[in-house]
Amino acid sequence: MHPPLKPGKVWLVGVGPGSPDLVTVRAARVLARAQVWLVDDLVSPQMACHASPGTHVEWVGKRGGRCSVSQDRIQQLTLMHALAGKEVARVKGGDPLLFGRGAEESAFLRAHGVPVEVVNGISSGQAAAQALGVALTHRAHCHGVSFVTAHTSDHGSPDWSALARSGTTLVIYMGMSRLAAIRDALLAAGMLPGTLAAVVMHAGSDGQQCWTGTLATLGEALDAGLASPAVIMVGAVLSDAQLPAAAGKGVVAFA
Amino acid sequence: MHPPLKPGKVWLVGVGPGSPDLVTVRAARVLARAQVWLVDDLVSPQMACHASPGTHVEWVGKRGGRCSVSQDRIQQLTLMHALAGKEVARVKGGDPLLFGRGAEESAFLRAHGVPVEVVNGISSGQAAAQALGVALTHRAHCHGVSFVTAHTSDHGSPDWSALARSGTTLVIYMGMSRLAAIRDALLAAGMLPGTLAAVVMHAGSDGQQCWTGTLATLGEALDAGLASPAVIMVGAVLSDAQLPAAAGKGVVAFA
Repeated sequence: MHPPLKPGKVWLVGVGPGSPDLVTVRAARVLARAQVWLVDDLVSPQMACHASPGTHVEWVGKRGGRCSVSQDRIQQLTLMHALAGKEVARVKGGDPLLFGRGAEESAFLRAHGVPVEVVNGISSGQAAAQALGVALTHRAHCHGVSFVTAHTSDHGSPDWSALARSGTTLVIYMGMSRLAAIRDALLAAGMLPGTLAAVVMHAGSDGQQCWTGTLATLGEALDAGLASPAVIMVGAVLSDAQLPAAAGKGVVAFA
Repeated sequence: MHPPLKPGKVWLVGVGPGSPDLVTVRAARVLARAQVWLVDDLVSPQMACHASPGTHVEWVGKRGGRCSVSQDRIQQLTLMHALAGKEVARVKGGDPLLFGRGAEESAFLRAHGVPVEVVNGISSGQAAAQALGVALTHRAHCHGVSFVTAHTSDHGSPDWSALARSGTTLVIYMGMSRLAAIRDALLAAGMLPGTLAAVVMHAGSDGQQCWTGTLATLGEALDAGLASPAVIMVGAVLSDAQLPAAAGKGVVAFA
């Protein structure tokens, strides 16, 4: 049997924060059509409801810096299936274009002649705001929102001073292991200790938990049991938070 | 006939950037279930495919600052239908929590005892990156992305200097009428004239058009025919742009 001359196609599919009904209609169609799924570790197993019978599903990807399958190996796997003529869904939590390495994986596949298409998804920062009952932006409080990663293994720290001065709501991904350092950097940048802060663990997914407090008390989110994967929010928009204990601080678990 | 004692419910539904298959499965279900739709002007008429027969659909909202129905009147209309016991979908483009006045409308309805639930959507900035073939963030280039509005009628200008220094990709909404001012502010903040820039009109929707160039040439996007509604992107992530003319500048229309 000859291998097909024409490579298959790869979709980098963002499946959103976790709940299976937070995928887009386009993502659901692509997931149903794909013959192969290569799924990141943080994607909820419930997402399998979108697979057609007989789909080859492989769990790959990284969790909290620990590589179960290296980025290189993931890209090689994706390429291998595509070159075998398969329609491949590279399934990623959130949006592949926001901290999802979507550009890297796209560039690699394009360089090997494989057609790639990205399907946007709802990011966990969006779901975190929804969970807290706040908006990411509010005319009365800010001009915008910054989504940043505190992850430093690759490329140092963000410019916390400029971010603090920007007046945007801050939404910080992958920051739970550096919570105290983030707090200290924002305080050193001149942010007031009373600036409202929140942490949402498993935003938009099963086991979602919210903590609200202030920049000064941010470290207490860890004592309250919140851990990765979680999103940290800082900014005046949190004054609208709809949690029972929003005025002070507290943890609320949702069903 | 007595009015029902129990108010209905309002969903603030983000329907994404325009293409009907970029709504979430949750949004599609809510749209099919709602008895009343109150729809913002910028929402694509194609979205009507998600309505059940007999749905009462009203177009409200604002376009480019021109109020067809005032914000006050929209909120009153929403309240009226909810108090009449209806299930109301307040249909908004993008994500209601990102420049969508979601917090204001939620607070108003809650204050009147009406249950409110937000359904996140894909924002046009996410769709703009997808259209350009770039990511919003890239490990090699930046720590994050800032979504800001250049709209000034309510609350002055963003701190362009801090945003420029933040090193984040900039995604600017509602900026086409102030394109030259934005360019000048970012140059004055020390951003290099050769910094890559792009404009995507009707991102993720029919009639999508992309322009790519640099900060120095940003004003030419207007000459090229791009206009509101459009998203402006500025940052090194654009070096991955997949347009035929991405190396220089150019306009590409997609089917």
